[in-house]
Amino acid sequence: MNNVNITILGLGTVGVGVVNILQRNQQLIQQRTGCQITICAAAVNDIAKVRACNTEQIQITDDAASVLARADIVVELIGGITIAYDLVMQALQQGKHVVTANKALIAEHGQSLLNCANDNKVMLEFEAAVAGGIPIVKALRESYIANEMLEIKGIINGTTNYILSKMHKQAWSFADALREAQQLGFAEADPTFDIEGTDAAHKLAIMAALVFNMPLPLVDFYCEGITKIAQQDIQYASELGYVVKHLAIAKVAHQNIELRVHPALVAKKSTLAHIDDAMNAVQVTGDAVGKSLLSGVGAGAEPTASAVVADIAAIAKRAFVDKVSSASCQPSPIQRTIIDNFESANYLRLQLIDKPGVLATISQILGEHSISIHSILQQQAAKHDGQVPVVIVTQPVLEQRMQQAVVAIQALFAVSDDLIRIRLES
Amino acid sequence: MNNVNITILGLGTVGVGVVNILQRNQQLIQQRTGCQITICAAAVNDIAKVRACNTEQIQITDDAASVLARADIVVELIGGITIAYDLVMQALQQGKHVVTANKALIAEHGQSLLNCANDNKVMLEFEAAVAGGIPIVKALRESYIANEMLEIKGIINGTTNYILSKMHKQAWSFADALREAQQLGFAEADPTFDIEGTDAAHKLAIMAALVFNMPLPLVDFYCEGITKIAQQDIQYASELGYVVKHLAIAKVAHQNIELRVHPALVAKKSTLAHIDDAMNAVQVTGDAVGKSLLSGVGAGAEPTASAVVADIAAIAKRAFVDKVSSASCQPSPIQRTIIDNFESANYLRLQLIDKPGVLATISQILGEHSISIHSILQQQAAKHDGQVPVVIVTQPVLEQRMQQAVVAIQALFAVSDDLIRIRLES
Repeated sequence: MNNVNITILGLGTVGVGVVNILQRNQQLIQQRTGCQITICAAAVNDIAKVRACNTEQIQITDDAASVLARADIVVELIGGITIAYDLVMQALQQGKHVVTANKALIAEHGQSLLNCANDNKVMLEFEAAVAGGIPIVKALRESYIANEMLEIKGIINGTTNYILSKMHKQAWSFADALREAQQLGFAEADPTFDIEGTDAAHKLAIMAALVFNMPLPLVDFYCEGITKIAQQDIQYASELGYVVKHLAIAKVAHQNIELRVHPALVAKKSTLAHIDDAMNAVQVTGDAVGKSLLSGVGAGAEPTASAVVADIAAIAKRAFVDKVSSASCQPSPIQRTIIDNFESANYLRLQLIDKPGVLATISQILGEHSISIHSILQQQAAKHDGQVPVVIVTQPVLEQRMQQAVVAIQALFAVSDDLIRIRLES
Repeated sequence: MNNVNITILGLGTVGVGVVNILQRNQQLIQQRTGCQITICAAAVNDIAKVRACNTEQIQITDDAASVLARADIVVELIGGITIAYDLVMQALQQGKHVVTANKALIAEHGQSLLNCANDNKVMLEFEAAVAGGIPIVKALRESYIANEMLEIKGIINGTTNYILSKMHKQAWSFADALREAQQLGFAEADPTFDIEGTDAAHKLAIMAALVFNMPLPLVDFYCEGITKIAQQDIQYASELGYVVKHLAIAKVAHQNIELRVHPALVAKKSTLAHIDDAMNAVQVTGDAVGKSLLSGVGAGAEPTASAVVADIAAIAKRAFVDKVSSASCQPSPIQRTIIDNFESANYLRLQLIDKPGVLATISQILGEHSISIHSILQQQAAKHDGQVPVVIVTQPVLEQRMQQAVVAIQALFAVSDDLIRIRLES
């Protein structure tokens, strides 16, 4: 039996999950890997804090650098990209294999970390960094290896999906749904990273880098959160046969790569429309495999820890059972153009003064920008302020042309605050 | 660059798919694996037959045994368990790695083949044998390795799912839907293996063996096809809030393993209810990861070939890049009890004579077997033969008790041909 020592950096939610799984399923994991995995040390901020796991056999320290040497595999679960980066770099340079669940770290510094791992002939694994318990990283790297990947489309942020699900099913306001998500622990006290789309953008960048062989970080792609989605948009979307989902999309478009994160109207009959609450899903389209969907719990202690332990087990088998001394095969990434002028149909909601000719003027502006209208909803009577909400769904149009039309409409009607635009899933 | 030679046994639909993918995506696969994969030979029944792929550089022979020696990896795509078994055994004994898409072969002879692979320190991979392009074998063996697996539940036969989908959505009869499936090439000319559940049972056995560490073959578990499902059952199911799906279920029950394949009423709000047409899906429940669902195209040339090539690539990397000389770690399987007395709620449809007291008698028989009734549907007026269809949904009950009650009802009313029973998904 091979003994493999691990050091955990950070005993927060996921760290506690890793300790609990490794202890609870110790026998199973040992039988399946041929390795006895021992947690020898854990580095924490506050030694005195009580943890929801058994730490009797584990050296607990607040000096992380001092316990790297004890490990065969270092498991980074601190989060953030300052301390975590330094410690992961140190670990790799000391010839330690590293497992991390840190999407920001990989999205921002993945390339330099992987290079460092290669230089030191060790492995750096990060399955848990994308969509928690969903094995999408392994699937993209190994299961779909025969495919030219055409598209990745995902619901990869549990908080925004929870909020949108509640807005649909319970008719809650955005604010109420966010508050509930925070109370249930899905959303952080500062939910900015989730609701502004940054978290989803990090995960999308990691997947795109793997599939399209691009060097991380991938920057400056379109990223929009869900803060502007109102209850009435949810209702109009439903009337039109859609649900609003927060999508992350990477696809090949004219040899370039299109990356974008934004709310989207998803047809109710689509499988993605049925991924509810805090669930995540990633739909991949390969030239050989066709469309395939992986869904599951995208966050939380044990689902994420399940992915962390899978990475630990894979490294243990490879390094200590198979005795492979090199890093896994890393093709050299290539620089590719990320385009921001993608095509999509658009849902527009405007507050218009209820008088003849207003709608005709809007239609004319759209026409001047060569934008065709698919449908118009104008059901409600004028409110006391003389304004009515009008919903227009356009035919597919290039993003830049749509932006120009929106500017023209806003200039004419001074409706800047009230013009809501949601792209349709394409 | 490592050169890896493969010999393909069988150039049918999947074999042609493998050739096409390896040629079309040659550069990508080379870059991702660090190996140049060359198809050196292919063994076929009929040399003269024209194939839908370029075979210029491939030696085509009808003497399969003669081309095993040329290969580093033998790819078995013949199907069936006679010739295929002999050739795979020969290949393993000659120290060749083997990839197969043959579910019957693995389900029936998996253990002896894996033992032979271990003895000869070669790899035997079979991702494509279960659910085509869905990477469920790798997920079960690697991604969920940290989990005690509690349940696997799948829609894993495309033909039956296509037939049931058409019966639901187009209100077709079973016979019409089957004919259409045959015309589209989903169903074989002899569809027995699909519609009687044998194909699903093979795939379920493979998954259960992997997850619960049991030696194949797994025999004598409950297996029922979809031939008895009538259009009216589809309609009643829909009225009750369900769709009928053909499910394969493996789960832990009181330390034993419950295995079963049968049609089931699945609640419309369940994700599995939305897996339509020829799509497959497998939902796994692990103690750490929770519920996770993988879905995709479960059959067809390229989706299946995508999985075959993924196995080829994995072996190539492991054997020729990492230069691992042993077989992958295979824990010794343990004998476990497969129980057939599982618990489920039941949908019963009976033709009853429309006179007072008949329903009361049925209720009494159910009561005598301690079976509680959840709901009764009796909407239609008596037909000209004086019979009315009655639908009863029971509370969950042990299979054996339900069987006894069914026998008692049939004895009393002589309704043997007309008593339809479909279990509810639990």
